Amino acid sequence: MLIIGEKLNSTIPKVRKAIKEKDAAFVQDLAQKQAEAGADLLDVNTAMEDEVNDMQWIVETIQQVVDIPLCIDSTNPKAVEKGLETAQGRVMINSISMEKARLKGILPLALDAKCELVALTTDDNGIPKTVDERLAITGRLVGILEKNNFPLEKLYVDPLVLPLAVSNDNALVFYRSLTEIKQRYGVKTISGLSNVSHSLPQRRLINRYFLANCMNLGMDAAILDPLDAKIMTAITVTNLLTNNDRFSRKFLQAYRAGILEG
Amino acid sequence: MLIIGEKLNSTIPKVRKAIKEKDAAFVQDLAQKQAEAGADLLDVNTAMEDEVNDMQWIVETIQQVVDIPLCIDSTNPKAVEKGLETAQGRVMINSISMEKARLKGILPLALDAKCELVALTTDDNGIPKTVDERLAITGRLVGILEKNNFPLEKLYVDPLVLPLAVSNDNALVFYRSLTEIKQRYGVKTISGLSNVSHSLPQRRLINRYFLANCMNLGMDAAILDPLDAKIMTAITVTNLLTNNDRFSRKFLQAYRAGILEG
Repeated sequence: MLIIGEKLNSTIPKVRKAIKEKDAAFVQDLAQKQAEAGADLLDVNTAMEDEVNDMQWIVETIQQVVDIPLCIDSTNPKAVEKGLETAQGRVMINSISMEKARLKGILPLALDAKCELVALTTDDNGIPKTVDERLAITGRLVGILEKNNFPLEKLYVDPLVLPLAVSNDNALVFYRSLTEIKQRYGVKTISGLSNVSHSLPQRRLINRYFLANCMNLGMDAAILDPLDAKIMTAITVTNLLTNNDRFSRKFLQAYRAGILEG
Repeated sequence: MLIIGEKLNSTIPKVRKAIKEKDAAFVQDLAQKQAEAGADLLDVNTAMEDEVNDMQWIVETIQQVVDIPLCIDSTNPKAVEKGLETAQGRVMINSISMEKARLKGILPLALDAKCELVALTTDDNGIPKTVDERLAITGRLVGILEKNNFPLEKLYVDPLVLPLAVSNDNALVFYRSLTEIKQRYGVKTISGLSNVSHSLPQRRLINRYFLANCMNLGMDAAILDPLDAKIMTAITVTNLLTNNDRFSRKFLQAYRAGILEG
């Protein structure tokens, strides 16, 4: 499973401040730490007053010190475009959806870049409640991308988990959506982790088991905090338990390095 | 999921000593602690020189202080018979299998008691390596029990997980066996937890995620240590994530009681 580091996000106050003040050392340190902790890609989000220029600055700043791919995270086509222009090498767009404005703005960029692409199962009616509605939106998105010759193996569909606190079956709805989207459309799947536990206590504990369950269902990527040793341990142990760790090598390495925590 | 407390087992040195010395206070304390921690049943095993008399003593001793059902754990028909005779109320036999001697000894007792029954997917060739062999043994066992009018809703099949350290796909073989046994035969499933992590470090960590995965696949019962706060937390969180905790009530109760750990 691809691990996408979530820390370089302007909704986090310290990161917001660092971007505003062009504190390169802070941003570079956070990039390096996430890469060292095992992130395969780094999500970057600069949604503030000067989002487009900030995107250029943060991409350049990060790529001075790490060479893992970036995930350009924005609803603003201009910011995504700037990120794509600036970034060297492999890149991912986060995200497209069936919301009209977003589709119109992001689709041409995705078709041009033919890079990895996150697609949310939402439209202008908001996040759907049911599995079937998520499948229907996925079908419409896949249809549009296919018609435009987008390489579907680069698509990561996020079935958008809603909080358990809103409805106790929301994790199950997500699990079923993930399974059926993979089966029906043969595309990859992705998720963030924090929404499922919204307004409950012990959120990271809930998130860990949620992630493990998703991995068991074959989820292909997750956006998460790679500096959280317990969540990284959950990944290591779940890879061990699903025959994704030949000779238990990574598990034993993590054990010997003293970084298993849980 | 039924939680069967595993602590009253003569393979544990302190328990062995307590049974030998007829230390009722020790045994009763361990019974009460497991019940308070959330065990639905208590496994009892007295496999020593004087197994049959010890079984009678331990059952009587436990039932003086707790009234949750006991799971009579023995390969010795005489010990199982004594346990069934002595125990008050609901009881479970652990276990029958397709090993000739065990089948011959335990089957008449199970048919007579018509109580809950654990069945291991093994025969005189040992524990099978493949999913198909486990299904075949289950089929033979179910056939025999059905022919003899045993109520199949009381059957718990244990597909017997083998250590990851022996083969990295052993957990997957177990998951698939569990799923297919439930689908094909419509019977309940059960497992112990410790085998999967045998000869690896951090065994309890592995066992917790293994259990969570099994619960996601609908496993009906597990034999485990209810005094392990982290495994009980894994159960609470997994129940929350699988819509088995209405209004998140048990999760929030555990949180407020300060017993969530992980």
